[in-house]
Amino acid sequence: MRFEVLVLGNSSATPIFERHPTSQVINYNEQLFLIDCGEGTQMQLSRYGIKSNRIDHIFISHLHGDHYLGLVGLVSSMHLVGRKADLHIYGPAPLQEILELHFKYSETVIRYNIIFHPTNPEKEEVIFSSRMMTVKSFPLIHRIPCTGFRFDEGKRSASILAEKVEPLNIPKPYYSLLKKGIDYVDPQGNVHQAAALTVPGPASRSYAYCSDTVRHPIYLPSIQGADLLYHESTFLDEMRDRAKETFHTTCLEAAEIAKESQVKKLLLGHYSARYKTLGPLLEEAQTVFPNTELSIEGKWYLV
Amino acid sequence: MRFEVLVLGNSSATPIFERHPTSQVINYNEQLFLIDCGEGTQMQLSRYGIKSNRIDHIFISHLHGDHYLGLVGLVSSMHLVGRKADLHIYGPAPLQEILELHFKYSETVIRYNIIFHPTNPEKEEVIFSSRMMTVKSFPLIHRIPCTGFRFDEGKRSASILAEKVEPLNIPKPYYSLLKKGIDYVDPQGNVHQAAALTVPGPASRSYAYCSDTVRHPIYLPSIQGADLLYHESTFLDEMRDRAKETFHTTCLEAAEIAKESQVKKLLLGHYSARYKTLGPLLEEAQTVFPNTELSIEGKWYLV
Repeated sequence: MRFEVLVLGNSSATPIFERHPTSQVINYNEQLFLIDCGEGTQMQLSRYGIKSNRIDHIFISHLHGDHYLGLVGLVSSMHLVGRKADLHIYGPAPLQEILELHFKYSETVIRYNIIFHPTNPEKEEVIFSSRMMTVKSFPLIHRIPCTGFRFDEGKRSASILAEKVEPLNIPKPYYSLLKKGIDYVDPQGNVHQAAALTVPGPASRSYAYCSDTVRHPIYLPSIQGADLLYHESTFLDEMRDRAKETFHTTCLEAAEIAKESQVKKLLLGHYSARYKTLGPLLEEAQTVFPNTELSIEGKWYLV
Repeated sequence: MRFEVLVLGNSSATPIFERHPTSQVINYNEQLFLIDCGEGTQMQLSRYGIKSNRIDHIFISHLHGDHYLGLVGLVSSMHLVGRKADLHIYGPAPLQEILELHFKYSETVIRYNIIFHPTNPEKEEVIFSSRMMTVKSFPLIHRIPCTGFRFDEGKRSASILAEKVEPLNIPKPYYSLLKKGIDYVDPQGNVHQAAALTVPGPASRSYAYCSDTVRHPIYLPSIQGADLLYHESTFLDEMRDRAKETFHTTCLEAAEIAKESQVKKLLLGHYSARYKTLGPLLEEAQTVFPNTELSIEGKWYLV
């Protein structure tokens, strides 16, 4: 079951060196989610072959331009290419007012439904839930209200051990119950334990997204144990004071956070315009948390 | 004296095939003006080596997203890179409200002055004037209020005919008066006619910009005789009905407009997403107006 993240933009506020403002696509079993939507996101989607109308859920962390200025353009283009499906947007409450002002003056009547879900920057909340995926928003600490997002996969199905089940002549309709851990009782009253007839499903996976934020313990419980953590790492640690002042994080801090929250892998991003080459950012983080990777635009990362 | 136009985006509303929404830079004698500012303009400026802080005047035609959604990002980036100079923005009145709403929710206090000049979509007006350049806005006919822009160079200086002036021992300070056509009277009372001692300056040049608009006679006087006319040409003429319906122009119509208004050269642009290759658009226009060129992103066009 595919669970991957495509990085569309890894730049901080001033895009430079062909890096773009923040946006990411999550592909979970061919269902696409978008996190943040910086300026140019619709062009980046097109560049990397993602049809925008496959996206039904968009999550916006906060209202700094580099995280949302591509939203009006994307939503308008979805309209122009004939979208009919509902679009769910999750983000800070005033985002709705901003969208509506654009539509008012461009005299645009979007031909599909936009369902707006205001996020809560004060506490963790479940904002989306389907059979196989739960998304939570949680508070980050930035200059303006901001939330991170965590994507948790549902429990993955166990597999039937055919060589054990078939000789017992268990009727096929019971297989799905066995997979759920429900024992089978045959007509003679014999109990066949599900645990003995199945292999447990693989562990459920989780992806956590933190951008933008200063380092702060408040959000550690929300990212605890994630398989993949994307954490902003705007600066090298020599700029730690500047990071604090601007409510951002250094690479070393991101690595320390990854370690403290026991995530399996760290993905860096939201690079300051002062860094043309990114090698030193990775090296710094790896001194504390070796399983770190640089997010590169156009690349898919396994969760 | 340089007078050129750099096309940053030539796409209509849905950007595709690596084409970008509308934006252009005018370089007049190293003073830069920006016309329209579609999503991604700041990245396009960076791609083509234009420092955004060299731009002091931005002209926005109308409030469809593909003509202005890059403005908030550009203005914010100018702030982030330490701009101090005033920035003049000319555009539809509600643009100011849109900008202010973004700054309110992103809690941004721009550190330089933005001077907003609302344009008048009802009649032609001079909106900018310097010693060597006058800019007018004029009404176009689109689904929402929209203006074109015309850039007229001031009178260009005559040149002194050194071989005629030097034998007369005319004092150097009088040269600039001769260039302006003022005759020199020597101490003996002899009149030396400026016309005989100078070569007239080259003709003044003009650039007209029309995007977006349906074909309409109302704006022909405003573009009359321009050296270079950029005119939107969203569709091939087989889509003439669709062009009317959406208040756009076909390539053939753009060529007819160029002919009727006696411009010297026509530049096509604002291409619909339905055209991957642009050759047929050019061919169609050239059947009526041979001196037509396709606008290509990243290319400078002489006025």
